[in-house]
Amino acid sequence: MDIDTIAAISTPMGEGAIAIIRLSGPEAIEIADKIYKGKKKLKEAETHTINYGKIIDPDTSDIVEEVMVAVMKAPKTFTREDVVEINCHGGLMSVNRVLELTLSKGARLAEPGEFTKRAFLNGRIDLSQAEAVMDLIRSKTDRAMNVAMGQMEGRLSKLVQSLRQTLLEIIASVEVNIDYPEYDAEEITNGILLEKAQMVRDKIEELLVTAKQGKILREGLSTVIIGRPNVGKSSLLNSLVHENKAIVTDIPGTTRDVIEEYVNIRGVPLRLVDTAGIRETEDLVERIGVERSRKVLKEADLILLLLNYNESLTDEDRQLFKAMEGMDAIIIVNKTDLEQNISLDEVKALAGNRPVITTSLLKEEGINDLEQAIASLFFEQGVETQDVTYVSNTRHIALLNQAKEAVNDAINSMSLGVPVDMAQIDVRRSWEILGEIVGDTVSDSLIDQLFSQFCLGK
Amino acid sequence: MDIDTIAAISTPMGEGAIAIIRLSGPEAIEIADKIYKGKKKLKEAETHTINYGKIIDPDTSDIVEEVMVAVMKAPKTFTREDVVEINCHGGLMSVNRVLELTLSKGARLAEPGEFTKRAFLNGRIDLSQAEAVMDLIRSKTDRAMNVAMGQMEGRLSKLVQSLRQTLLEIIASVEVNIDYPEYDAEEITNGILLEKAQMVRDKIEELLVTAKQGKILREGLSTVIIGRPNVGKSSLLNSLVHENKAIVTDIPGTTRDVIEEYVNIRGVPLRLVDTAGIRETEDLVERIGVERSRKVLKEADLILLLLNYNESLTDEDRQLFKAMEGMDAIIIVNKTDLEQNISLDEVKALAGNRPVITTSLLKEEGINDLEQAIASLFFEQGVETQDVTYVSNTRHIALLNQAKEAVNDAINSMSLGVPVDMAQIDVRRSWEILGEIVGDTVSDSLIDQLFSQFCLGK
Repeated sequence: MDIDTIAAISTPMGEGAIAIIRLSGPEAIEIADKIYKGKKKLKEAETHTINYGKIIDPDTSDIVEEVMVAVMKAPKTFTREDVVEINCHGGLMSVNRVLELTLSKGARLAEPGEFTKRAFLNGRIDLSQAEAVMDLIRSKTDRAMNVAMGQMEGRLSKLVQSLRQTLLEIIASVEVNIDYPEYDAEEITNGILLEKAQMVRDKIEELLVTAKQGKILREGLSTVIIGRPNVGKSSLLNSLVHENKAIVTDIPGTTRDVIEEYVNIRGVPLRLVDTAGIRETEDLVERIGVERSRKVLKEADLILLLLNYNESLTDEDRQLFKAMEGMDAIIIVNKTDLEQNISLDEVKALAGNRPVITTSLLKEEGINDLEQAIASLFFEQGVETQDVTYVSNTRHIALLNQAKEAVNDAINSMSLGVPVDMAQIDVRRSWEILGEIVGDTVSDSLIDQLFSQFCLGK
Repeated sequence: MDIDTIAAISTPMGEGAIAIIRLSGPEAIEIADKIYKGKKKLKEAETHTINYGKIIDPDTSDIVEEVMVAVMKAPKTFTREDVVEINCHGGLMSVNRVLELTLSKGARLAEPGEFTKRAFLNGRIDLSQAEAVMDLIRSKTDRAMNVAMGQMEGRLSKLVQSLRQTLLEIIASVEVNIDYPEYDAEEITNGILLEKAQMVRDKIEELLVTAKQGKILREGLSTVIIGRPNVGKSSLLNSLVHENKAIVTDIPGTTRDVIEEYVNIRGVPLRLVDTAGIRETEDLVERIGVERSRKVLKEADLILLLLNYNESLTDEDRQLFKAMEGMDAIIIVNKTDLEQNISLDEVKALAGNRPVITTSLLKEEGINDLEQAIASLFFEQGVETQDVTYVSNTRHIALLNQAKEAVNDAINSMSLGVPVDMAQIDVRRSWEILGEIVGDTVSDSLIDQLFSQFCLGK
């Protein structure tokens, strides 16, 4: 394990009022002292104090910055190591120069996520809590934020650990039975173990019920707007974006080819895909061809299909209905400000049990209904965010599914009368898989890979 | 004067590890306490301490963020008011939600620069120091940073105040003379006053000598690369940008039509204008036409003219020489890797006393010479950055010029034997003008206008 001192700029790049250079490690305070000049040395400062002073380049004696330096001594810090945060005026030049000075005086440039990684490796938080830190940063709605906060607070960890505890009890019981077969005072019956295993499985299943919503809260509901030309796709997009203010119009690190916009519809984060295409041509379907548009559709969580109230249904409209068979969709019949030529009965027949909304985007009518429909669709399962432990991370969902499978295997074996010491292998497997969620049983390379997705300075 | 409590996000927008919400004003601590839950209330915290806790939405009881809250009590703070800085995980949603909570609990959203404005209004720093804060943030090179740091430390202020003191002495002497003509024990001769006024004028002139360099350090040397097609403009641009790493490729707040890149050439910040044009077409001159290109040239501080070593001079080349008559330029004869067909004598004759460099950008030869030529051109006046008080701000330069004029008027009047109480009017004017630099004599609207150019949260 590394025990060097790391440093990084922890505020976003760009012009701002305050920028922070964060140091963590055994020499954090010593290194900072080499470039800091204040009333007293930082090493003489009390822990958790803010100290006014200047950053001086010791080689040139240049005053580089006027700073407030936060000194936080181990172990009550983010990383459980000594942490120094140099708050300076947010200029790119000066921030970089302060960082360079810390590096030249013995710190190493931190890798992305390395501060949080240290918090994990030093046992302050477990892996799922560490992952929640990034979820919190990237969350797009209040609800998503609550889910991330809950996970960061350890809700998921506690649940997973209690399931692991139960599995461990099964394992222990079996092993006691194997090692000391003479003690059958506490005889282990298949029945008791079976019951415990079933309880674990039920709890995992309960958790997995929240997965779909959790994942959408975390990643956004991938939404595509389709419809024939001039039916109002651009207007719908604008009305959704403007009424609900776009949260993110560009995500760092993603290619600019596909432009996505996030809007927050009553707590549901909609990720509007290919908005550039819609804005530019007002004609997704024609532009990219039927094959390509089908592919875009298949990847969507939700389709908003626009139809023209003023025209009767065309073959093209019917083709679109076909293309989105079996998918979540809302049918929007737009232009109610004009004469009705569409057969709403036919639309409803094609829509099946999917909601049909009529709107006049021009007159800003029906948008509330649409938003209500989106929210209902999402919250149809009636799961409340309060007091529910969500699982939202794809990695966690996959592991929970695997753990469930393993427990199921054990349950099946036990039900078929397979000896418990055989079934126990599956129980142990499940215990290990659940351990990967909290990071107890997880490889170094996976840890490295997970933290490398973090932002710099975190 | 406002005495409400203001709040703003003080870190740049974007995904980052840490975001800060800053509060300043009499109720800063009280407001923070309404949404903070830690071991103890913030109002019970010592000044300049960091306090771990959670931000809770009091209406929903949601945990919004896990935070470190810095409490700094007046007067030893940035604004001289109570200041609270809430450091949270840098998510857009959570940062905004924390800000909104502070606003709903009684804070007002700060205007751009309002924290620094309060530091000025509360007398912690003067106006030129406040302006230096933004210069520091926006500085593009180490030297520019040093200039801004010096100004922030009060170097310019001290100099201006000492000049004002001298002017005040003149005024006082004259007034004593007018009010008590019977006390001619301390007789005021024109001679003594003249001497003092001349000293002030000389000092102002000395300061103005640094203005050109100061302004370039602050704003960058606006540089245009010209030359016929295929002479290597794109290569030159790339070599300058890559060798010296671009500092800023996009400046927030400027239109994207004209793309500028900053490069740091041995401490000289070059602002390369219309780099997009060069990159896209490799042909600035042809693309924008002679008229337009002349305009671009006229606005430049420095022209880099590229010629082809492999071809003899063309009429077009000669036209370019004509277009940049009387301007600072460096002539670069590129492609020395090929056969010489150009007459270097003719080039030198056309160049006059402007430097002529030969390069092979392909073989990366001659780039050092070019950088040396740029640095020499800029530092030709031999002014050293160390121990020189620079004036760099256009507003300050204009005021210094006006103040010099006013003193000059007084000097001329006195030299012509005009009574000192008449000449004194110009002395007073000069004193007032200098006062505008440090903000002693300045209108509220100017103050508002100056601070509105600051970034949010500063």
